[in-house]
Formats: sequence, C-alpha cells, structure tokens
Amino acid sequence: MAVAVQIREAKEADCGEIMKMIRELAEFEKLSDQVKISEEVLKTDGFGENPFYHCLVAEIPPEHRDPLGSTLAGYGLYYFTYSTWTGRNVYLEDIYVMPKYQGQGIGSKIIKKVAEAALERGCSQLRLAVLDNNRSAIEFYKARGAKDLTVAEGWHFFHFDNEAVREMVRK
Amino acid sequence: MAVAVQIREAKEADCGEIMKMIRELAEFEKLSDQVKISEEVLKTDGFGENPFYHCLVAEIPPEHRDPLGSTLAGYGLYYFTYSTWTGRNVYLEDIYVMPKYQGQGIGSKIIKKVAEAALERGCSQLRLAVLDNNRSAIEFYKARGAKDLTVAEGWHFFHFDNEAVREMVRK
Repeated sequence: MAVAVQIREAKEADCGEIMKMIRELAEFEKLSDQVKISEEVLKTDGFGENPFYHCLVAEIPPEHRDPLGSTLAGYGLYYFTYSTWTGRNVYLEDIYVMPKYQGQGIGSKIIKKVAEAALERGCSQLRLAVLDNNRSAIEFYKARGAKDLTVAEGWHFFHFDNEAVREMVRK
Repeated sequence: MAVAVQIREAKEADCGEIMKMIRELAEFEKLSDQVKISEEVLKTDGFGENPFYHCLVAEIPPEHRDPLGSTLAGYGLYYFTYSTWTGRNVYLEDIYVMPKYQGQGIGSKIIKKVAEAALERGCSQLRLAVLDNNRSAIEFYKARGAKDLTVAEGWHFFHFDNEAVREMVRK
C-alpha cells in the first residue's frame, strides 16, 4: 500500500530513528562493524551552530503508523563540498528507504529535495559513492543521469583511518 | 636547492596564484577542460561568512622568489564532511606542489597540517580521490597509510552534472 509520506528537514528528536536506519543500511551493505557513531553524536554534529551535515526524512502520516513502530520511512543525508574545478557541490552521503516502504517513489522524492537544496546554494554537481555490489542503488542513480566516474575516468577512493591520521601528526 | 617554505592558511589575496596552480594540476591530470571556476569564485566561496573550503599554502621565503614568479610553491585544499558510520571527517580535495619545488617534503608538510586540522575538529578520518594513473600521488598517500577503498571494498565514485541535477528538480 502506497503511503503519502512527507519529506521534511530532520529535527534533533529524529536522531534516534535516523540512527536505527543508518544501522539497517550498514547491515544491508554488510559493513555494519564500521558504524561507530551514536544518536548523541548525530545530535551534536547536525544540530549545533555549524552543522556538519544536513538531513531530510520521509515522515509516515500518523494514520499509517504502526503504534509501536517508526514515524519515519527513510532519510537522505548530505553536505556541501567544494571542487577546485566546478566550485560548490553537494555530496550525498546516504539515501535509505526502509524495505516495507520501498518501491513507492520515496527515494525519488528525497533525491529531488537534495537536488533542490543543491541549486538553492549555487552548487553545480551532486556527488556520491556506491558499493559496486549495490546494484539497486546504482540503477537508481544511473536512471536519474548519474555517471560512474570510477569507470569513466579512473577515480579511486582513498582513506586514512584515525590511526593513520594520528601517525601523520606525530611525525 | 631545498627551500624552507612556510605552510600557512591561505588569504584572499592568494587566490590568483592558487587558481594558477589549480589549472596546472588539472593539466597534469589531462582534465583541464573540466576547470570551470575562476579567481573571483575562489574568493567568494572560501572567504565569506560560511566558507565552502579551507586552503593551506606553501609560501616561498622572499629571498628565494623569482622577482617575476610565484610567491607560493604549492597548496592543499580541504573541507569538513560527514560519515554516517564514523562521524566528522576531512576530505582532502587537492594537494599540489609546483614541479620545481617537488621532492623537498612540501607535500608532506601540507598533509601533516591537514591531519592536524582534522584532529583539532574531532574528525576521525581523512578521505580523498585519486586518478588511477596518478602513480606518484598514489605512492605518496599509500606511504602515509592510506587505503584504496575502491580496490579493498568496491566503492565507486558517481556524479550528477549540473544538467542532471536540474532535470531531477524539474521532474
């Protein structure tokens, strides 16, 4: 049954449910051991004076909620970044829709709102990273015009973990 | 001849030289047609109330400058991002050292300062993207403990260009 969800900006009180969905998404990606943050960290980092991220949530109308269940069906988390070639960009960290609400266009509504936020702030591009075995996400993004820059141009993603960052400072 | 450069935060007046180095780096990567920004855009986006990026520069001491040449030998441009798994992160957009100043440890000094900025703001990781044919950059990062997540875990980089972003908003 399709549910008319409302896409709105996340509030601090949503962080518990958002954290639950972050864990669900990491489980789906089989990388849940990498989730190190908590509801408290999400609150501090997203709702202070200089928030580190922006988050949209898909709210389930009260009449469709399970009394013991979630008020949210999904979320989209993004932030503003910068390219020395194209200037202001948006980076889409995650889009997630809970399995029982998938196939209703909720992900499309979320990414549309992210695209609107990008244009409002004068961003030229929207970037993201996807695991190569996450076929449904890749189809979702490609259907909307996204290009795989790892395949097309050879961009690889690198990271320094916390130990490596500390080691560079010590040297 | 090794030159004792000083690594400092960029000022608005450095943007002309930074823009010149951005173009040099893009030429080295054979993607200079992708450079769309200008000195003015760099000034607006990096030196307003809510800067979109942070930039470090390597300043050449006056006695070592060519009177008609650069005052800077290189730059490092980064910004703060967010991971739903590890929280606050730093993303290193570029590190560049002009060819005549390479091999003197200037890149190491710049990345060390970026790592310090990361720890000061409570960031756990440092992330970046490298072209797979840029062997010297890959060696530079791997020597300092970076891991290629495209190879290790299968992360691919996607982007929506401006036309694709506008199309999502129109739909």
